[in-house]
Amino acid sequence: MEHLEYQEGRTELESLGEFALIDRLTEGFGRRHRSTVKGVGDDCAVLGTGKRKTVVTTDMLVEGVHFDMTYTPLRHLGYKAVAINLSDICAMNATPKQILVSVAVSNRFSVEALEELYAGIRLCCERYEVDLVGGDTSTSRVGMVISITAIGEVESDRIAYRSGARLHDLLCVSGDLGSAYSGLLVLEREKVTFQANPNFQPDLESYDYVLERYLKPEPRVDIVKLLAEKEIVPTSMIDVSDGLASEVLHLCRQSKCGCEVYEERLPIDYQTTRVCSEMSQNMLPVSNALNGGEDYELLFTISQSDYEKIKDSTEVHIIGHITEEGSPAVMVTPQNTTIELRAQGWKPVE
Amino acid sequence: MEHLEYQEGRTELESLGEFALIDRLTEGFGRRHRSTVKGVGDDCAVLGTGKRKTVVTTDMLVEGVHFDMTYTPLRHLGYKAVAINLSDICAMNATPKQILVSVAVSNRFSVEALEELYAGIRLCCERYEVDLVGGDTSTSRVGMVISITAIGEVESDRIAYRSGARLHDLLCVSGDLGSAYSGLLVLEREKVTFQANPNFQPDLESYDYVLERYLKPEPRVDIVKLLAEKEIVPTSMIDVSDGLASEVLHLCRQSKCGCEVYEERLPIDYQTTRVCSEMSQNMLPVSNALNGGEDYELLFTISQSDYEKIKDSTEVHIIGHITEEGSPAVMVTPQNTTIELRAQGWKPVE
Repeated sequence: MEHLEYQEGRTELESLGEFALIDRLTEGFGRRHRSTVKGVGDDCAVLGTGKRKTVVTTDMLVEGVHFDMTYTPLRHLGYKAVAINLSDICAMNATPKQILVSVAVSNRFSVEALEELYAGIRLCCERYEVDLVGGDTSTSRVGMVISITAIGEVESDRIAYRSGARLHDLLCVSGDLGSAYSGLLVLEREKVTFQANPNFQPDLESYDYVLERYLKPEPRVDIVKLLAEKEIVPTSMIDVSDGLASEVLHLCRQSKCGCEVYEERLPIDYQTTRVCSEMSQNMLPVSNALNGGEDYELLFTISQSDYEKIKDSTEVHIIGHITEEGSPAVMVTPQNTTIELRAQGWKPVE
Repeated sequence: MEHLEYQEGRTELESLGEFALIDRLTEGFGRRHRSTVKGVGDDCAVLGTGKRKTVVTTDMLVEGVHFDMTYTPLRHLGYKAVAINLSDICAMNATPKQILVSVAVSNRFSVEALEELYAGIRLCCERYEVDLVGGDTSTSRVGMVISITAIGEVESDRIAYRSGARLHDLLCVSGDLGSAYSGLLVLEREKVTFQANPNFQPDLESYDYVLERYLKPEPRVDIVKLLAEKEIVPTSMIDVSDGLASEVLHLCRQSKCGCEVYEERLPIDYQTTRVCSEMSQNMLPVSNALNGGEDYELLFTISQSDYEKIKDSTEVHIIGHITEEGSPAVMVTPQNTTIELRAQGWKPVE
């Protein structure tokens, strides 16, 4: 009878960041197969021996950690669980094709509740032309856990890794930043109000955009298509799930480069700015953009020679450029102050 | 603020079996891509447009439901979590190549505990020549959840679906049946003893085989190799995870046939028989074989013309044959009594 969790000399999970933990756990795993083109360390694994590669990613969502059932409609949850996996497929410049879905639930949930969840899963599959090809349903003692694996396809010469950014490349981001986190802030505020007075009916209409961004993100399959149409292969790419700062640092670390991001270039929606000013005088929209997370936009670099092809796109914003190896990743303010970017850590709860 | 779980007119999860639930949840999902050869309904999805197909499966293990931390060493748990997914790959007559691993844990677990888990994952990867290519680590409020996706390869003309069994085919099973469940019975008994007297040191040596079968099952990659060497393509195949009876019924339902299983042909290990007699006078080893589950052996059918090729194998047992459509799946006892096989249901806990 072993109780490893109570051993002496233990290292707490909090003492390592998420990425240091993954590095530590996966070191020593070799690569045996020629068909394993890329393993751990990017948005997807890349598999296959032919010209056309298969990309695979998986993500687990845990109730109470990744979602709060008090303000997450199950249909939205199903949609979002698929969308965030498809976003990882897009981040390789690939097209999503199939998903597998595993759900564990306690009997707090009815069959109808699960049908709502699957209605959202189906909606996202239909919208992005993805086939549901497997998975399982099992029991959980506490709450709901959803694990989705997504599979996509991409030609070898169009794959975008995190590691390919080169000196002077332009740093681009799709859509806008910080709005999903602003939506979460509104929901958390309403939850507190609701708990104090369950008869209170919140007026959420004027927050429709930020709420939708949080509850029902869209994977940027359209950007992958746009890049193909414009005959651009990004030199590097990652999706923005943990906030811009964290993702910029990933690109720079894996591409062995620095970068400059211009604060005034960051795409921030009006509602994001309004929510910030409502919440606190000290809450800056740019902080939400840098650290908020859950945007599921695409951050990528392109060669300067591709500038003309993309400069008129309303959905892609050029926010900075790559600097040489050894230089830091920084944000330049409108006052020309330079601030080094830092990622927010990952903390286990409980 | 929606609370779908408390809606009126709810259908309880218990009122449907696991498979009826999956059918209900996944109906209405179309198939859009030519590369989706087989979706939901077999041990794996089958993908790809070329001669060589990719097979994919995923499984989620939840603490307190699928494993009990009081008697499951984390290293064994990691090994088993991989093994049961590789078993699904084998059940398509395919060879496992890659896995992705997602783990959610509360901070009850230390980094060292997770390293133990990953040591087991690594051991299984090394033994079966599988590459770890992705996954994530996240937080859970309660306990541990492990979700693994496994990917394998198989030539189109060697794939074994559940649906291919034909009249007069021979029904075969690898290894032995009921031993894993016997191991679980021993562990549950020792847990009760341990809880009553924590200083009690159980003598588990004489149960080594059944304990190993439960704690550290082996996917039958060797049987897939054997079948290739003998130039046998099974007409149908499934892995035995929920007990022989349940799996036989799956094969018969999907192949639209009946079958006769001979009780005296069921491979049952001596320790399995001994555990049964210790537990209760009424516990029959054959019941463990039919309903115990977690054997992770391969159940398959072969053409009678392949009989000579396999009859001398010590690892494959011919336990019956396929009967015509419309006839039931039955077990024939040594006394020549015929018993209709029934699957045990799936029940959500809590």
